[in-house]
Amino acid sequence: MIKNYLLAPGPTPVPPRVALAMAQPIIHHRTPQFSRIFAEAQHGLKRLFQTEQDVLMLAASGTGAMESAITNLFSPGDEVLVINGGKFGERWGKIATAYGLTPTEVRVPWGAGVRVDEVRAVLDRQPGIRGVCVQASETSTAAVHPIEDLAALTRERDVLLIVDGITAVGVFDLPMDRWGIDVLITGSQKALMLPPGLAFIALSERAWERSATARLPRFYFDLARERAALAQHTSAWTPAISLVLGLRESLAMLFEEGLPRVFDRHARLAAATRAAGRALGLQLVAPEVPSPALTGLYTPSTVDGGKLVAYLRDCMGVTFAGGQDHLKGKIVRIAHLGYMGVFDTLTAIAAFEMALRRFGHNVPLGCGVGAAQEALMAALPE
Amino acid sequence: MIKNYLLAPGPTPVPPRVALAMAQPIIHHRTPQFSRIFAEAQHGLKRLFQTEQDVLMLAASGTGAMESAITNLFSPGDEVLVINGGKFGERWGKIATAYGLTPTEVRVPWGAGVRVDEVRAVLDRQPGIRGVCVQASETSTAAVHPIEDLAALTRERDVLLIVDGITAVGVFDLPMDRWGIDVLITGSQKALMLPPGLAFIALSERAWERSATARLPRFYFDLARERAALAQHTSAWTPAISLVLGLRESLAMLFEEGLPRVFDRHARLAAATRAAGRALGLQLVAPEVPSPALTGLYTPSTVDGGKLVAYLRDCMGVTFAGGQDHLKGKIVRIAHLGYMGVFDTLTAIAAFEMALRRFGHNVPLGCGVGAAQEALMAALPE
Repeated sequence: MIKNYLLAPGPTPVPPRVALAMAQPIIHHRTPQFSRIFAEAQHGLKRLFQTEQDVLMLAASGTGAMESAITNLFSPGDEVLVINGGKFGERWGKIATAYGLTPTEVRVPWGAGVRVDEVRAVLDRQPGIRGVCVQASETSTAAVHPIEDLAALTRERDVLLIVDGITAVGVFDLPMDRWGIDVLITGSQKALMLPPGLAFIALSERAWERSATARLPRFYFDLARERAALAQHTSAWTPAISLVLGLRESLAMLFEEGLPRVFDRHARLAAATRAAGRALGLQLVAPEVPSPALTGLYTPSTVDGGKLVAYLRDCMGVTFAGGQDHLKGKIVRIAHLGYMGVFDTLTAIAAFEMALRRFGHNVPLGCGVGAAQEALMAALPE
Repeated sequence: MIKNYLLAPGPTPVPPRVALAMAQPIIHHRTPQFSRIFAEAQHGLKRLFQTEQDVLMLAASGTGAMESAITNLFSPGDEVLVINGGKFGERWGKIATAYGLTPTEVRVPWGAGVRVDEVRAVLDRQPGIRGVCVQASETSTAAVHPIEDLAALTRERDVLLIVDGITAVGVFDLPMDRWGIDVLITGSQKALMLPPGLAFIALSERAWERSATARLPRFYFDLARERAALAQHTSAWTPAISLVLGLRESLAMLFEEGLPRVFDRHARLAAATRAAGRALGLQLVAPEVPSPALTGLYTPSTVDGGKLVAYLRDCMGVTFAGGQDHLKGKIVRIAHLGYMGVFDTLTAIAAFEMALRRFGHNVPLGCGVGAAQEALMAALPE
């Protein structure tokens, strides 16, 4: 008998409350009943994004929203700066290329955050650049980029800052309006604790202005059309109705807990996991700029990380993510985002210890768990 | 945000598969459709009880089945021997008294199992005794009684052995027919992984013969009437339909895992918890005869066990049971029965360590967890 524990950086576990909300009978989407639910969800999404702007909802995965940012804001041949510090940074470049833009890549070593002065230098050198595409949390390396500083930089120029916040929104503080982020994106299957199938995107005032003259082709992902529909409390195309019912519930859960406490919880679980990693003598993938969404740890050189991840999943029921590209087989990624509490993290660490032992790496069992418990004690009520 | 972990000795967690089965639309119980389900469940219950006899299903809690054993097998004034080693042993005496029987109690120190020679001595001294009532696992003390030996003793006399197996059936081996148990009882909310609401009882051939002359009054719990209904693949009264749908699923899960492996799993989780208790310097409530269903541990004398249990439940989301009567405030009881795996047990121990620390008892965090992990390593696949 194996129970399953999902500790990958998406999809994340769906809380029973949300699952029950989604199990409600389907209702029609062109009705006042659905419009009320849609409007409630919109209200919550604005609070979550910390914006006065509309937050548009697409029946798509996060990549769809990334594509929509490109197609709605640029014209053929436009120059964009892509910050590539991992698989998802790389994806910005691929989308830009697919649509005939001219991307300039700032390459960042995997596990590091981009240096703002490097971005400034490129912008100074190439004044034709019209947008900067970046991840708030680069899921493939468990590192964060300095969004606030990047926003300060782009705000003073005619350069849009387009932020993939897929493993960041609802995980740590990312105040869109206050910082001056032009585009902020997330997906349903991360901190929002929903199954995959919804993506969310909000545009700043100047991004909306830009979209009016952007000439790339778009139809399903035409954000102006979604914005017009939203004014009527509906969506342009058929919405993922059950997911929207779940979204209303998951937003309610986030605000009942309170965003600051949600952010604290993620930070705490990540810090505890890093403490466990230190106690076990393992190196962090992103030691300088670790993401609160997930923790990347190098496995010992004697252990095949890919086999370890498969063993944890198939023999212990514990799903981590492994490494990609040149980190394949060398790291594990343990998620903290979404419906995650103290005992999910301790389960992850206990399982990791036991699997390492099974793979011949002789860690003292309970040692990482104990370090994590120490780190988590402070959050326990008196 | 607190997630809930139910580690009390009943109710126990309901697996998603079972919850989904119970969420099916209700069907009528006087139909061929329901009779098919009922017959399937009956087939599984016989395997679970390890008996050729009918296993009757009552819409009641386990206590209802205990009462039915008394009312169907005895007549006013009958002498019975009650083995009282805790709250549930005591309950046998209360039921017998309520129905005007003449119980003789064999008192057993809490945490111990009854001594068979003591039972033999009473039976020799009081040849009028017509039944022995006992618990296979005494939930209040986390101790087991020697059922096989007791059955060997009663089998050779005209004395029925009536076994409350409420926290034993499906937890450890208790072969009804092979050992010669006359009455075996369990409830739905224990190893059967269902919500409360169903009780199960099976009678040996000689118990059925006895019931024909037993004169205590009975109606709802008239087992002969249930047996006649069962021959028609139905129940005498309205059955708890959704629970029966769930039962079919939970039995399927038990047989997919295989009873020997189910028993091993319970034994392993209990052994790991005892190892953790030793590592933390805590005394077992039942050191000689610990139950695989749950582990009772004395809390340190400086810690109020009742407050600790409340703190674990309310501040950490982890539900243990505390002590009853003279053990109130002095012990915790951590369950292993039902839908429980390695990480439920490790969660219980990690939470226990942290709560002890919060209550001023300076345990080394991770120490009990590590001892439990060591004990659990052997069960991990290569």
